[in-house]
Amino acid sequence: MDMEELFNPESIAIVGASAKPGKIGYSIMRNLVEYGYEGSIYPINIKGGEMTIKDRKFKVYKSVLDVPGKIDMAVVAVPAAHVPQVVDECGRKGVKVLPIISSGFGELGEEGKRIEQQLVEKARGYGMRVIGPNIFGVVYTPSKLNATFGPTDIIPGKLAFISQSGALGIALMGWTILEKIGLSALVSIGNKSDVDDADLLDYLEKDKNTEAILIYMEGIKDGRKFMQSAKRVSRKKPIVVIKAGRSERGARAVASHTGSLAGADRIYTAAFEQTGVLRAFSISEAFDWGRALSNLPEPQGDNVVIITNGGGVGVMATDACEEEGLKLYDNLEELKVFANYMPPFGSYKNPVDLTGMATAAEYEGALKTALAHPEMHAVVVLCCQTAILDAKDLADVLINAYTESGRKKPLVVAMVGGTEFREAINVLNENGIPTYPEPERAIGSIAALYRWHNWKTKEQVWRRP
Amino acid sequence: MDMEELFNPESIAIVGASAKPGKIGYSIMRNLVEYGYEGSIYPINIKGGEMTIKDRKFKVYKSVLDVPGKIDMAVVAVPAAHVPQVVDECGRKGVKVLPIISSGFGELGEEGKRIEQQLVEKARGYGMRVIGPNIFGVVYTPSKLNATFGPTDIIPGKLAFISQSGALGIALMGWTILEKIGLSALVSIGNKSDVDDADLLDYLEKDKNTEAILIYMEGIKDGRKFMQSAKRVSRKKPIVVIKAGRSERGARAVASHTGSLAGADRIYTAAFEQTGVLRAFSISEAFDWGRALSNLPEPQGDNVVIITNGGGVGVMATDACEEEGLKLYDNLEELKVFANYMPPFGSYKNPVDLTGMATAAEYEGALKTALAHPEMHAVVVLCCQTAILDAKDLADVLINAYTESGRKKPLVVAMVGGTEFREAINVLNENGIPTYPEPERAIGSIAALYRWHNWKTKEQVWRRP
Repeated sequence: MDMEELFNPESIAIVGASAKPGKIGYSIMRNLVEYGYEGSIYPINIKGGEMTIKDRKFKVYKSVLDVPGKIDMAVVAVPAAHVPQVVDECGRKGVKVLPIISSGFGELGEEGKRIEQQLVEKARGYGMRVIGPNIFGVVYTPSKLNATFGPTDIIPGKLAFISQSGALGIALMGWTILEKIGLSALVSIGNKSDVDDADLLDYLEKDKNTEAILIYMEGIKDGRKFMQSAKRVSRKKPIVVIKAGRSERGARAVASHTGSLAGADRIYTAAFEQTGVLRAFSISEAFDWGRALSNLPEPQGDNVVIITNGGGVGVMATDACEEEGLKLYDNLEELKVFANYMPPFGSYKNPVDLTGMATAAEYEGALKTALAHPEMHAVVVLCCQTAILDAKDLADVLINAYTESGRKKPLVVAMVGGTEFREAINVLNENGIPTYPEPERAIGSIAALYRWHNWKTKEQVWRRP
Repeated sequence: MDMEELFNPESIAIVGASAKPGKIGYSIMRNLVEYGYEGSIYPINIKGGEMTIKDRKFKVYKSVLDVPGKIDMAVVAVPAAHVPQVVDECGRKGVKVLPIISSGFGELGEEGKRIEQQLVEKARGYGMRVIGPNIFGVVYTPSKLNATFGPTDIIPGKLAFISQSGALGIALMGWTILEKIGLSALVSIGNKSDVDDADLLDYLEKDKNTEAILIYMEGIKDGRKFMQSAKRVSRKKPIVVIKAGRSERGARAVASHTGSLAGADRIYTAAFEQTGVLRAFSISEAFDWGRALSNLPEPQGDNVVIITNGGGVGVMATDACEEEGLKLYDNLEELKVFANYMPPFGSYKNPVDLTGMATAAEYEGALKTALAHPEMHAVVVLCCQTAILDAKDLADVLINAYTESGRKKPLVVAMVGGTEFREAINVLNENGIPTYPEPERAIGSIAALYRWHNWKTKEQVWRRP
């Protein structure tokens, strides 16, 4: 069954729509309107009448059955007790996908699970797919769709994010905005009564707007199904997973939180390794990797070159490279070319140290050289804030040099410093160059790219170092 | 020999002072004036005359020998070739400490090392201590002293930071401002020709304004001296070290960068473990720990309580606790008290899940309970951004509850979300509550406190997990 209507619906009904700020049914309406969704929007509320959302007037229907046109997606935000009737009406209306925001089902225990299963069976009988229940909605930036009650201004990009946790997922929507992480899709799957991780992987595999997939996962119900999908999709697009409940006590906490069985963690570890899934151990690590994986091309070889203006960060990056199993290019004859961009006391050994005298011009020369050199396959640019290096200039020359080169090699940047540097980091990230505030995070991210690339090309299990 | 004059000089000469923005000799003058140093400032420049810095007029002396009053500290920022003469004049003037900003000495090789050693011998002959050369200066916030050419607005606090690397150190000055990390002192020690890490540890051990010490280190010359000092100081104040050059290739890069021998890394590891020094593996980790160690009291027992509004982050924190060897309190009878601050579907098992329904009021009740309970020894507060939780309100109640309790137990906070949450993180940090944007960093930081505490009280080696 296809899920095209989850990402590209031509019309959406909000069941439980409200004009009252603070209500979930209001936030979803507001996000749909503000984010610029161009299809038809039908607010549904038993009270009927009209409502005005952000200066746009809507007729309110008492039931989806009263809507004159077709409805592709119905977002359900009514109390749990009313959900069964809504599912029935949506089915009769011919709705295709049903994100159920409402909570109060499987997460409460056995009785809730039973009701939840009945809803799914009813929906399936009508040919509908259910997302959730117990979710915060769905975003698909290419169709300007933000049908969530989270923040509005999701940044368009090429990373798809799937979250089992509602609270964390909605908090992470804010995180992606703050950190300038561009998303193609964001799907909250909550109790996974019907649509699960594997279904979404199958869709996203073919989605031309998605280059990498990040999943926050607490547990999987159908392990075999997930592994089949993950293994196939990983060959085309990298998958990053944060799987909470690694520890024994953490696994017990998962069980009490979602009611899903966290399972022995080593089974997950083995499954991820076999299917090429990259397992991150924290939120920032997952998004660091997702940022690199969704923006960068695959490397055409193992030789990494580090360009720096500070010996200290160069050493830190070297440590991280060795720990991550990355290979630093060390053909001194070829590296000599970098001597053109440094004073006599610089070092063209890799890490290439342009010294604290480097301005944007020296970085530009060195980066262009590395991007053009056939034996240099990936580039790491590091810089420490100095009095003579203008952060904005540096961001500009890096963006221009990388774009002019056709963005054919992986490039990551780390900029260590204060406010101006943090602003430059944002500019670089907004322009698709993965940039971090410290060397280890840049190296960790390009290492994730290599890890996936090596799994994919050599089908070998590359364990987390 | 005492180094009181490095931190509390009554008068400072800037040799190589300049009124021209962009010059190092200008930046140091500007920082001294802007940061509010209240002692005498004497600009020294061969040209003589007068100079105006930020509306303040100074008579410029051609030599320190021409200055009428005494000079405690002379900051030397003239080309390397002129340094020997300056050292001589400073000695004759009776200067006590001599931070030599100038580069072009030991970092260039054997000949440079020889000249450097001669300078030190000459200075010692006069009873002067040399800091550097090849440094960016010194900050001591209690005496409003910022004698660096880095950023001005260093935030006062209780963490002392010692940096061997100039470029990285100056970039990290900006980092501390951005991340709201309060410093007592910041000393750039560069080539360590005279004053080294151990000398500064000895001073900072007794400094009542310093609660924790962070060192960025590339190599140590006198290992025995460092170990003696570190072991003694660690019993009173925690020491965090970032020691670059962990890997074989990193160690070689250090040698080419500073000319100092990085040494076999396992020797450093053993030395740190034996002396209670906490070794961090990245900049953010070091400052995360430094933030907690400089602000928090020691725990009076092992029982950690986690209070959260999201199951997902609770599980992530639980994983991190188990990996870090922290003990989650699990006396269910006592934990039941938290049921007062949650809806019926919340969970008072540790992690205590107030659920997504929690407002600042529920957090306040739960935190006060934990802070008052005799069996709960350390508290971790986690929260995910939700529609009903006001970040500013939350920050206010946490600060008030913690202050009212007398700040007798360690408390760390993690707030996951967007812009408003990031602002609340800053507010909490400005108020001395170590707060982070994700659970793992909060747990890692309180774990560093426990690691130090356990080393100190049990003298046991607690290895990095």
